[in-house]
Amino acid sequence: MAEVKNKQVVLKDYVTGFLKESDLDLVENTITLKLPEGSNEILLKNLYLSCDPFMRNLMSDIGILEKFLPYAPGSPLFGYGVAKVLESGHPDYKKGDLVWGFTKWEEYSLVPSSRILFKIEHTDVPLSYYTGILGMPGMTAYAGFFEVGLPKKGEKVFVSAASGAVGQLVGQFAKLTGCYVVGSAGSKDKVDLLKNKFGFDDAFNYKEEPDLDAALKRYFPEGIDIYFENVGGKTLDAVLLNMRVHGRIVVCGMISQYNRAQPEGVTNLGNLIMKRIRMQGLAVTDYYPMYHKLVEYVVPKIKEEKIVYVEDIAEGLENGPAALVGLFNGRNVGKQVLVLARE
Amino acid sequence: MAEVKNKQVVLKDYVTGFLKESDLDLVENTITLKLPEGSNEILLKNLYLSCDPFMRNLMSDIGILEKFLPYAPGSPLFGYGVAKVLESGHPDYKKGDLVWGFTKWEEYSLVPSSRILFKIEHTDVPLSYYTGILGMPGMTAYAGFFEVGLPKKGEKVFVSAASGAVGQLVGQFAKLTGCYVVGSAGSKDKVDLLKNKFGFDDAFNYKEEPDLDAALKRYFPEGIDIYFENVGGKTLDAVLLNMRVHGRIVVCGMISQYNRAQPEGVTNLGNLIMKRIRMQGLAVTDYYPMYHKLVEYVVPKIKEEKIVYVEDIAEGLENGPAALVGLFNGRNVGKQVLVLARE
Repeated sequence: MAEVKNKQVVLKDYVTGFLKESDLDLVENTITLKLPEGSNEILLKNLYLSCDPFMRNLMSDIGILEKFLPYAPGSPLFGYGVAKVLESGHPDYKKGDLVWGFTKWEEYSLVPSSRILFKIEHTDVPLSYYTGILGMPGMTAYAGFFEVGLPKKGEKVFVSAASGAVGQLVGQFAKLTGCYVVGSAGSKDKVDLLKNKFGFDDAFNYKEEPDLDAALKRYFPEGIDIYFENVGGKTLDAVLLNMRVHGRIVVCGMISQYNRAQPEGVTNLGNLIMKRIRMQGLAVTDYYPMYHKLVEYVVPKIKEEKIVYVEDIAEGLENGPAALVGLFNGRNVGKQVLVLARE
Repeated sequence: MAEVKNKQVVLKDYVTGFLKESDLDLVENTITLKLPEGSNEILLKNLYLSCDPFMRNLMSDIGILEKFLPYAPGSPLFGYGVAKVLESGHPDYKKGDLVWGFTKWEEYSLVPSSRILFKIEHTDVPLSYYTGILGMPGMTAYAGFFEVGLPKKGEKVFVSAASGAVGQLVGQFAKLTGCYVVGSAGSKDKVDLLKNKFGFDDAFNYKEEPDLDAALKRYFPEGIDIYFENVGGKTLDAVLLNMRVHGRIVVCGMISQYNRAQPEGVTNLGNLIMKRIRMQGLAVTDYYPMYHKLVEYVVPKIKEEKIVYVEDIAEGLENGPAALVGLFNGRNVGKQVLVLARE
């Protein structure tokens, strides 16, 4: 019965303010690579871990996310990941299966089968994509843009955090739908990526725009039909001034607010009224029953290179804390993935 | 050709900050009670004028309402009203018709026929009701609650400014739909009205609640399914903390913000995300094509006293400025109407 070392990233204590690497700790534990007698759990070897902004919310001592308790100090983080089944106590899974769902930030995990969301069927695309375009961010972009945004050909779409895990897909989905799409991001490199790799009609660096309202008026002289909201705060306020009648704001995330003790106040909500704007929050978990539609939509397009997906790859658990912190200062370019093992 | 005196309420100059009576002027003009040769306009005798919060927005020198230009300083206000046709240059209307729609704050008005919204068919209910339950506020409450709110029996509904022109109807519609409904208002008299006359399940005076979040938790221990938003600002922020998953916020008005140079910041919009809240603005003009549904729904209920409607009646144009200003300090109890003439 092989007891092996099991490196973990644990939360030292609840976090207030901006997340720092020192809030996290790399520890070495051990695990027995054998399912306990009679267990119906699943023993996983973790391959790819997903670095996601929502994880910051679980580090506060208030559980602001429904269904998710905050992380326990001293215990490993959990989040989305891709893993290989080493041993299964549940009939739905067997040794060698590749799966994606919730796992822990450690090399090997023993998890209830309910934590696994999907068995991976298509292995002729990069496995890491199941943390991104074929995982939670993909489903978020797909459901948010198509199901909540209800886009029509020719509409004008604005995406913030547009080079991120979700934004880069929303922009490409918008182009495939015949929309005009502009993205904002936080560096010249990202802006170049939006324009030259993802095919956005235009893009700008919000850090170089002292007046976001004026910037939006430049790119959307006739206003915005759909705003895909990833950042919140001042950006949302400027967007509200530039929405068109019957516009839609898909509220996917508000990353600019997650590290603040007190969120920025949004002052332009009065625009919702006469412009009849629908502003709607999105939780990806509502849409997993239609995951097959995402797979059917994107897998052929990935193979035909009609959709591209940019990842920012960090190697090894020891680089996990830096990768996670990097999300909040915009260090990552594209979907931030942490590779533990490739098979 | 009778030239008669025509009293008017005019805007002195654009308004900043809180509306004061001295921002408005009562002037006496003259009008010829004869349609000009070849005119296809309508000559109206104004009977009832509606005092509505949106009018404040038209007094700023920025036109924040789509389609509505700001009022012109020196010219009479315009707004909703009930009027009698004295002479008509348009085939849809004839002398003696009672109509409601847009008219001006004066005794007699010459208006384009497009300003008239509806001919009044039912005259066995008070004519003044066509500024309220059977007018714009009635349509707003009906469309907002049923079409935007999509209520289901048993749901929990919160209404702010609940004794006002729209709120009192939303509460009664909610009860007729089998919902639990609580209203907030700004005085003991109004709270009594909500509980004893309009049949709200409960009501509170927001001025006596230093902690609105705590008040809402008391009345909605399981949270709010539908919030009918009439006030904005701090109330909205407290409501966002107390919405249930898949809740709906019908954004009808934000009266607490209209007199502010800078609106209050709303900080709890992050709740939209994991609770999948839909927050949707409402412009009543979108719903006038279904006005017959409002009439069919409420007229029988008015006659059977299954719906009541409380009005606050001011008499004469000279009392118009005070009536209008009163909306913003909550002086009115029920729908504020200004009577110029009863026939």
